[in-house]
Amino acid sequence: MFYGGIEGGGTKFICGIGNEDGKIFERSSITTTTPEDTILKINNFFNINRKKYKFNKVGVGCFGPLDLEIGSDTFGYITSTPKEGWQFYNIKKTLQKALDIEIILDTDVNAAAIGEHLWGNGKGYTDFVYITIGTGIGGGIMSNGKLIHGLMHPEIGHILIGDEKVLKGFKGICPYHDRCLEGLASGPAIKTFWNKDIEELPQSHPAWEEESSIISQGLMNIILTVSPKRIILGGGVMKQKHLLIKIRKKVVNLLNGYIQKDNICKSINSYIVPPALGENSGLLGSIALAILV
Amino acid sequence: MFYGGIEGGGTKFICGIGNEDGKIFERSSITTTTPEDTILKINNFFNINRKKYKFNKVGVGCFGPLDLEIGSDTFGYITSTPKEGWQFYNIKKTLQKALDIEIILDTDVNAAAIGEHLWGNGKGYTDFVYITIGTGIGGGIMSNGKLIHGLMHPEIGHILIGDEKVLKGFKGICPYHDRCLEGLASGPAIKTFWNKDIEELPQSHPAWEEESSIISQGLMNIILTVSPKRIILGGGVMKQKHLLIKIRKKVVNLLNGYIQKDNICKSINSYIVPPALGENSGLLGSIALAILV
Repeated sequence: MFYGGIEGGGTKFICGIGNEDGKIFERSSITTTTPEDTILKINNFFNINRKKYKFNKVGVGCFGPLDLEIGSDTFGYITSTPKEGWQFYNIKKTLQKALDIEIILDTDVNAAAIGEHLWGNGKGYTDFVYITIGTGIGGGIMSNGKLIHGLMHPEIGHILIGDEKVLKGFKGICPYHDRCLEGLASGPAIKTFWNKDIEELPQSHPAWEEESSIISQGLMNIILTVSPKRIILGGGVMKQKHLLIKIRKKVVNLLNGYIQKDNICKSINSYIVPPALGENSGLLGSIALAILV
Repeated sequence: MFYGGIEGGGTKFICGIGNEDGKIFERSSITTTTPEDTILKINNFFNINRKKYKFNKVGVGCFGPLDLEIGSDTFGYITSTPKEGWQFYNIKKTLQKALDIEIILDTDVNAAAIGEHLWGNGKGYTDFVYITIGTGIGGGIMSNGKLIHGLMHPEIGHILIGDEKVLKGFKGICPYHDRCLEGLASGPAIKTFWNKDIEELPQSHPAWEEESSIISQGLMNIILTVSPKRIILGGGVMKQKHLLIKIRKKVVNLLNGYIQKDNICKSINSYIVPPALGENSGLLGSIALAILV
């Protein structure tokens, strides 16, 4: 049994064919241009592979915000994205028509979460959070074995951190909110505040103390809200491995013994973990959407 | 068909018998003393009513923190409560043995949430949040039609607010955390900071501007994390009706158009609402646990 997957990003769309073991058989990277041109190339990829692989569902983990509320007028749309040409674009219906196949659409982070659930560090967890800290900050949340959507989908990158001790009261770079998580702790935020590329900031640089303080405050709020059994922290910024160690310590300190569970008090190293899926996590997550949803 | 309910609080346990229409037939208030004495009186109540009403489940909405993780060594226990005699007390098993009946245990706020879901303002909502702002601050969250438990249960009273502009940097009254929601915005926090009873603070008093700022920052983080389709705000502090109006306005301002959904942008008055169940909400919620879980 094969499944299609599309990782939809603002710079590229990655298409692929995989199976239930998380093996990828075909893969193609398409530069994101206009919706029409991009969809045409996606369609070509799947048409070529249709003869060799039998699949009848394609999972799409896409940049957002997306409207995923069934019954909404703009259900299946990419909505208020800054990406030109893609605002209020009905990606679900367009792909469904072009490919003549069932499309399972979700956010890129929900796809990554479900990929980790199927083959990675979310395996066996019905209640966990996957967070990516990179160009942006986003998260997918599974509760009782189901991804949280609700009104829209989690947008944890924009929760407020507030704490004016961090980054000398810097308001952050989010155009919508002062002192939100993404505005303070995303890759571009670090670069803006310290005026240096992440790679130029050594492990001993104060940037990482600040970064870990901000992230751990965000994690604390997420832990106290959805009570996850595990947190998977991925994304480009988290490639700084020393950062994870700092974050774990600060989360325990912040919670201050309030949550009396061994997972946090005794086993923080297996409570906050890196993702298990590597380079192909976005594509694998999209394939996982087709398998599991 | 009848169902038993127990609203377990630190000062009193309210026992009752109700039905699927949310009608209460019997009701008794028992002062919370030692666990042994309290359980004995609860047992007496149900024994007396056993002959008249046929019921085979009793829902218990109890003060916490509770361990609700199946498989945990302390599953069904009240854990690290400050309430003397009740620390690490196996309330589920004790009641189950004493009453010889199936006990459905959950937090008081989860019970209230499910009561609102069955008969109140959460009716028809599979994704909503119930929050009480009173002596403490707590919340129950339903996602995809199920209450969120995860590792433990939501403890949203302790999310960090951070913002040092509110209450002149006051750290709050929580013994665990500086500047958490409950520490800053619960009834006792208001009383401590302003050195006045809530009833003495007129509508025009600056306390309410501050209070609504703190609560709306908390709500913003909750909205961006679990994406609820509705928020029900109850509890003693929320009896100040002008407060709800201030909170609605501030939540919309804080989100600043980021969540492009009519529920928030156009219909905030039906997005953040008061509870519908009145005085009996705790008991009704406990009965609802027995019906729905």
